[in-house]
Amino acid sequence: MTRKTGETVENPWLAEALTRPLPESVRFLGRADVMACLARIDVVAVVGDALANHHLGRTILPGEAYLSWTNEVGAYSRSIGMPGAVLAEGTEGVYGMKVINASVSNPEFGLERAGGLGLCFDARTARVTAVMEAGVLSAVRTAAVTAIAVEATGYRGVHSLTVVGCGTQARVHLALLLARCPGLNRITLCDVRRPVAARLAGELAQRHPEVSFSVVDTPEEAMADAEVALFLTTVAQGYVRPEWVRPGALLVNVSLGDLTDEALLDARALVVDDIEMIIENPRRPLGRLVGEGRIAAQAQENQPSITATIGGLLVGDASAPQPGAGYVVVNPFGLGILDVALFGAVLRQAADTAAGQILELV
Amino acid sequence: MTRKTGETVENPWLAEALTRPLPESVRFLGRADVMACLARIDVVAVVGDALANHHLGRTILPGEAYLSWTNEVGAYSRSIGMPGAVLAEGTEGVYGMKVINASVSNPEFGLERAGGLGLCFDARTARVTAVMEAGVLSAVRTAAVTAIAVEATGYRGVHSLTVVGCGTQARVHLALLLARCPGLNRITLCDVRRPVAARLAGELAQRHPEVSFSVVDTPEEAMADAEVALFLTTVAQGYVRPEWVRPGALLVNVSLGDLTDEALLDARALVVDDIEMIIENPRRPLGRLVGEGRIAAQAQENQPSITATIGGLLVGDASAPQPGAGYVVVNPFGLGILDVALFGAVLRQAADTAAGQILELV
Repeated sequence: MTRKTGETVENPWLAEALTRPLPESVRFLGRADVMACLARIDVVAVVGDALANHHLGRTILPGEAYLSWTNEVGAYSRSIGMPGAVLAEGTEGVYGMKVINASVSNPEFGLERAGGLGLCFDARTARVTAVMEAGVLSAVRTAAVTAIAVEATGYRGVHSLTVVGCGTQARVHLALLLARCPGLNRITLCDVRRPVAARLAGELAQRHPEVSFSVVDTPEEAMADAEVALFLTTVAQGYVRPEWVRPGALLVNVSLGDLTDEALLDARALVVDDIEMIIENPRRPLGRLVGEGRIAAQAQENQPSITATIGGLLVGDASAPQPGAGYVVVNPFGLGILDVALFGAVLRQAADTAAGQILELV
Repeated sequence: MTRKTGETVENPWLAEALTRPLPESVRFLGRADVMACLARIDVVAVVGDALANHHLGRTILPGEAYLSWTNEVGAYSRSIGMPGAVLAEGTEGVYGMKVINASVSNPEFGLERAGGLGLCFDARTARVTAVMEAGVLSAVRTAAVTAIAVEATGYRGVHSLTVVGCGTQARVHLALLLARCPGLNRITLCDVRRPVAARLAGELAQRHPEVSFSVVDTPEEAMADAEVALFLTTVAQGYVRPEWVRPGALLVNVSLGDLTDEALLDARALVVDDIEMIIENPRRPLGRLVGEGRIAAQAQENQPSITATIGGLLVGDASAPQPGAGYVVVNPFGLGILDVALFGAVLRQAADTAAGQILELV
């Protein structure tokens, strides 16, 4: 269907076609470099500033590109490209893209489920200026959003917390929350793989002897005493019943698939990171419920509704929810701009400390 | 708005949170590495196979992620993330993403307008396995599609060709077409920057003394004698009038913005790379005309319509257009899967020859 000759195979036409361009380089940061940079960055402040800027309209957040396939062992696999920009006042802004890939069979092969790259772009030329390992930053970003949401909704003084799903996200979440919520003294862990929960509980108990850790078999048991419950699973079908929730509690629905429709509909307050993203993604339960008209996209009296955004709480455009005997749900869609803000902070740090490698791109 | 303490800034919670992962690496290929690999790859065959596989439904082509902004000198700037997969029979398939960025002010600063990265993904784990310079590959892919379209529509024996827009794309296109169309003996160049066209004509005349090169001031003059006209500009507003077209000619509308609505509506045959992508993008003229019902998305008698895809022509599901005294338009949207196919071919070549650098990612 296409001609194939010795001449074409060697592409002699190409070498002479291109003019000699100006040299261009890109900074590469592996995980060790990223970790070294993170040791000098207040990640919660960076992510919080980005959430506040997003609320104030100082971000660009296009739709993501989503490639999915089934791999050779039948496992769901995907790549997401999430570009974005944070245009903070008084700076030239941060532009970039998160490429975050995952296959659900990766843990079977000893790999983290998700992995990917963070890219930074030059504000003037749009050129890629940095390529960095994104797995750590993605986990840190997600945990930072949870920590910010816990604080912005008024739960920083929490004593009892439960985590459902005890993988990498749980490790990073618990480490961050234990550092930021000094009142935490009872933590309950739950995972369909009980030994995974037990191992994490054991590790944390060694590092935090002042905190009581317990492992339970069911999410219902886990939630019975929890002022704050974090869902960090890979579940696709909702199972959390509203009657399991302790009155006055906060549920942080990080993995997005754990709460039943009833648990979302019964929430006294529903806090999200971005309303548009939720509405545009009817594959996710909250977006579907908004699309069906069962949850209003804006705060309504006496009707299930999205009551605030995290950014709105941070800048004071909304006030912390008052759940009374009800409960609060935080449903963070996950915003690539928050990762992009972190990539920018890491790159600034790397440039200041000459971290990573400079690679000749052109 | 977020607490900032010495403790948090240093993130001591993070280092202890993560388990030690398996090492992961990524292969990096700068432009020189890519060029070395290309010297052993039949790029037209790779792109042609991908177009045929696309026609046969053996590709995955999600929507792209598109970030745009205005830079500090007021120039339009953008980043596009284009993931995709080619699932050729008998292989595990090629998965990847093209990240192609551009700012229209780049040439003022001595840079190529567009630049970016090609990423390859592992079919089983979805991990990024390679990062390569994408500017050359993108230009080569675009030129390969044009060469394939010229041949598939029956114009391989062309004698007279014109190119409107004489940048990098024109250089690569002309080099490839001069290698593949041995009958070419008259080439007319046109650019709003006449010296750019004159310089390219001078360079080509040295390398191809058997061909007559001329430079003209207007597209109308350029098209008067052209059996094939290539549009390789950055124009946003259509200007090409149907009465400028030589009877029986082929117009390849690579830059997508040059043809007026009338020039699209009057075409005897309209060939595209992908009908869905055209329809889903009403910002582009052909997509808008289909959306308005003025051009049918499927071949129709006696009505302006999209008559074939390049892949359909390659596999014989459509026959070469017969323009008679009319003319043929090829309107290639630009498919990221074709770049991904090239990235895969380059990575295989690089692995075989140990080209590039292996970088520790995790």
